[in-house]
Amino acid sequence: MDDGSRWKTCWCTGPTFITCAVYGRCCLWQGPAAMDSAEFRRRGKEMVDFVADYLEGIEGRQVYPDVEPGYLRPLIPTTAPEEPDTFEDIISDVEKIIMPGVTHWHSPFFFAYFPSGNSYPALLADILCGAIGCVGFSWAASPACTELETVMMDWLGKMLKLPEAFLAGQVGEGGGVIQGSASEATLVALLAARTKVIRRLQAASPGLTQGAIMEKLVAYSSDQAHCSVERAGLIGGVKLKAIPSDGKFAMRASALQEALERDKAEGLIPFFVVATLGTTSCCSFDNLLEVGPICNKEDMWLHIDAAYAGSSFICPEFRHLLNGVEFADSFNFNPHKWLLVNFDCSAMWVKKRTDLIGAFKLDPLYLKHNHQDSGLITDYRHWQLPLGRRFRSLKMWFVFRMYGVKGLQAHIRKHVRLAHEFERLVQQDPRFEICTEVTLGLVCFRLKGSNRLNEELLERINGAKKIHLVPCHLRDKFVLRFAICARTVESAHVQLAWEHITQLATSLLATPRD
Amino acid sequence: MDDGSRWKTCWCTGPTFITCAVYGRCCLWQGPAAMDSAEFRRRGKEMVDFVADYLEGIEGRQVYPDVEPGYLRPLIPTTAPEEPDTFEDIISDVEKIIMPGVTHWHSPFFFAYFPSGNSYPALLADILCGAIGCVGFSWAASPACTELETVMMDWLGKMLKLPEAFLAGQVGEGGGVIQGSASEATLVALLAARTKVIRRLQAASPGLTQGAIMEKLVAYSSDQAHCSVERAGLIGGVKLKAIPSDGKFAMRASALQEALERDKAEGLIPFFVVATLGTTSCCSFDNLLEVGPICNKEDMWLHIDAAYAGSSFICPEFRHLLNGVEFADSFNFNPHKWLLVNFDCSAMWVKKRTDLIGAFKLDPLYLKHNHQDSGLITDYRHWQLPLGRRFRSLKMWFVFRMYGVKGLQAHIRKHVRLAHEFERLVQQDPRFEICTEVTLGLVCFRLKGSNRLNEELLERINGAKKIHLVPCHLRDKFVLRFAICARTVESAHVQLAWEHITQLATSLLATPRD
Repeated sequence: MDDGSRWKTCWCTGPTFITCAVYGRCCLWQGPAAMDSAEFRRRGKEMVDFVADYLEGIEGRQVYPDVEPGYLRPLIPTTAPEEPDTFEDIISDVEKIIMPGVTHWHSPFFFAYFPSGNSYPALLADILCGAIGCVGFSWAASPACTELETVMMDWLGKMLKLPEAFLAGQVGEGGGVIQGSASEATLVALLAARTKVIRRLQAASPGLTQGAIMEKLVAYSSDQAHCSVERAGLIGGVKLKAIPSDGKFAMRASALQEALERDKAEGLIPFFVVATLGTTSCCSFDNLLEVGPICNKEDMWLHIDAAYAGSSFICPEFRHLLNGVEFADSFNFNPHKWLLVNFDCSAMWVKKRTDLIGAFKLDPLYLKHNHQDSGLITDYRHWQLPLGRRFRSLKMWFVFRMYGVKGLQAHIRKHVRLAHEFERLVQQDPRFEICTEVTLGLVCFRLKGSNRLNEELLERINGAKKIHLVPCHLRDKFVLRFAICARTVESAHVQLAWEHITQLATSLLATPRD
Repeated sequence: MDDGSRWKTCWCTGPTFITCAVYGRCCLWQGPAAMDSAEFRRRGKEMVDFVADYLEGIEGRQVYPDVEPGYLRPLIPTTAPEEPDTFEDIISDVEKIIMPGVTHWHSPFFFAYFPSGNSYPALLADILCGAIGCVGFSWAASPACTELETVMMDWLGKMLKLPEAFLAGQVGEGGGVIQGSASEATLVALLAARTKVIRRLQAASPGLTQGAIMEKLVAYSSDQAHCSVERAGLIGGVKLKAIPSDGKFAMRASALQEALERDKAEGLIPFFVVATLGTTSCCSFDNLLEVGPICNKEDMWLHIDAAYAGSSFICPEFRHLLNGVEFADSFNFNPHKWLLVNFDCSAMWVKKRTDLIGAFKLDPLYLKHNHQDSGLITDYRHWQLPLGRRFRSLKMWFVFRMYGVKGLQAHIRKHVRLAHEFERLVQQDPRFEICTEVTLGLVCFRLKGSNRLNEELLERINGAKKIHLVPCHLRDKFVLRFAICARTVESAHVQLAWEHITQLATSLLATPRD
């Protein structure tokens, strides 16, 4: 063994090298150490600076990348390296290979989709989460992971003024859980509802098979609901019917009642309704106060999907949008959208946790532990689709504490204020129209005129890549969505964006048309 | 406004304070800044040191906590603070409130469950992932996020010597995707298989309803398969039958064939088989070379779940355990278990990506983008249950490059060597027996004698909290699982653990028994 190039001749060692197992001098070596803790201290701090530089300078980066599909593969080797690369190589490749293909969601010129939560406190919490690296599928697998989650979900529930029945408290039958996404929450709710109705019907008519029941089950959501609702129906193997929304893109009692009567007359079994608060297309709100009582009367599970809008309910002036939540069986929104918590953190509450647990519970011995039948504890694996789970409540804890409720409210209010500022700019230009009421941070607008015209405008906007938007369809209209997204977006950015849009519109309208 | 206590009287400001919106002087303020980038640089570096200290000192912490269920709630306020707390408060609470309730998965005295991946390169990559904070549901949502994933899955597939058909390459029909967990991968495979068989049968007999087909569908796995397989069946609304495993806890052709014949005779429709490589209980291997051809012949989807064992296939000496993968439609294992990548990162490959996409594809306008029909690009939202996804391939890229394939192989080999070392220690003590063949990093062992005796031994082990183990049942036997888990575990830890176990056993066997 050549001591001058130990690393090369003896790859099983590294900076923590003591003696080499392969060469038989001693077995007390530290294993393959790509990086020891001393180097991690150094590189970790460099990474913190890299991240701070990135976020400080993000405004100077083009918000949407120039790359074409397939750009990355030719830039990197076709196989993993046999020998280790250096950290310097990697970090310089981040700027050369990764950044040119990144859509910068946290640029203040990003107005597409909905916000994706990001804040320094959440980043700090995630570093800790990674280091603890527990897999919290049961209480015993890491008690702190489970217990902090339960309490954080209570904190957040109280911030929203959720009815007591949704909180875990010390003795509650309800409680909250962090899911990965609103899609999963919807699916989990649908599966719990499916299990519940099947059991109820089989108890009444023991001869009924699951298949015979499933074939008749029908779920409902507004025609404005997110595509993940339709997908939950597909996965759950049940029919999902879209209820025509009203002029304000809201699901109302009359349309739902009509569908119910028709379906029941055909022998179908309505069992599940998803009401959306803040739809993805235009941030419309289903009428909970009308829909809720129908669900209760008809014994249908009511799930509320407030993925985006939910964060705003921490402000007293927006809390009325949640009125009617008391009729629901489950409620979900994404702190990882608008509450400054990094993806993934989707908050879901149920009134009866036994409904969820009943749908999923399986207990092999290797997951059993002494406390599990004590009634005091929670094994979150029964509340969700995956078995494993990260320590995601740390992010909530750090963010809630370092912003305080007032800081979070200020963040929401700033976004709503900026949306109204954009709305006013649009209203002042007679070539444009506002398409739906602006309630929170999303403005749906378009040029008065054809869909083709608006498609072209959007193409020019996204082609110029100074700002980034995505469209939606509202009925037969092609509409542009302007969503206030970044944590750092300010009035100046909104004004620049509008100036840019109007310039592109002027040039578009001046172009001779076929 | 009292300038001496701005923070208190004007919560909408912070270190980036310019002028205050609430007090009307100017609208160009930076929003609620719990922390600006300068403070993040400082705190981030403190967190890096905190993490390095934690991982350096983890051996000195008690591996399993002393807390009782409900310990945490009384330690923290009942509601979120209105005003921000300081970072110092929070980080000191981490040590006071969180750490006492943590099961230290990365302690070298943790021998429970299976390893949970953790390494410094992965931690660094996750910091970057959080900062970029993109939600990669489509190619356009962040091209780098999608493209790096595709290429990393090819790298990893090549490290395992997966058949070419599973790789995306430039023109392949297959490819890989990062799922959150093996449970999700199994469910996704089952749903894809279900859609495929339903379409096939409906094409042949257009009158058949989905419900009528689903009622007859039947999936199979070994009686040793993970509980998530049973759950996938429950969620998918199909029957799942457990095939009795053989004396080595493996699923064999004869038992599967027998079940198939019986079920087909009853009019059922076999459509899906999960073969496990490295079962959770005892790391047994279903016989792929027998089971695979049956699946192909009977037109059943074969999914391979190698959640734990899969990482070892990067070593040539273990690759034979994967022989028969060529018969499979989908294959999955968890780099977040044994390949030093932090949770979550579950690698799944399919031979025909259209099978997955066909099961899930829904395309609302707000998710459409120019390139999606080009054939060159991938929208991973069609490959998975949730819509959103983090930039998880960064972790793979950092880990693969900073360890190199050789470093990763050395990590696997070290664990296997330590398992055999423990096996030899057990074999040398005539009071104990080894329960199954030790192939990789798991040793199943027990005291010769009653289950009650072994239950008591485990209680004493976990009660002493010097090391942490979990049990399993093998047929009617209660068995202790000794899994080599931590990245930093060495021979000395294994020897200390064995010494400790034998001392407890000696004292247990000396106790007068009823």
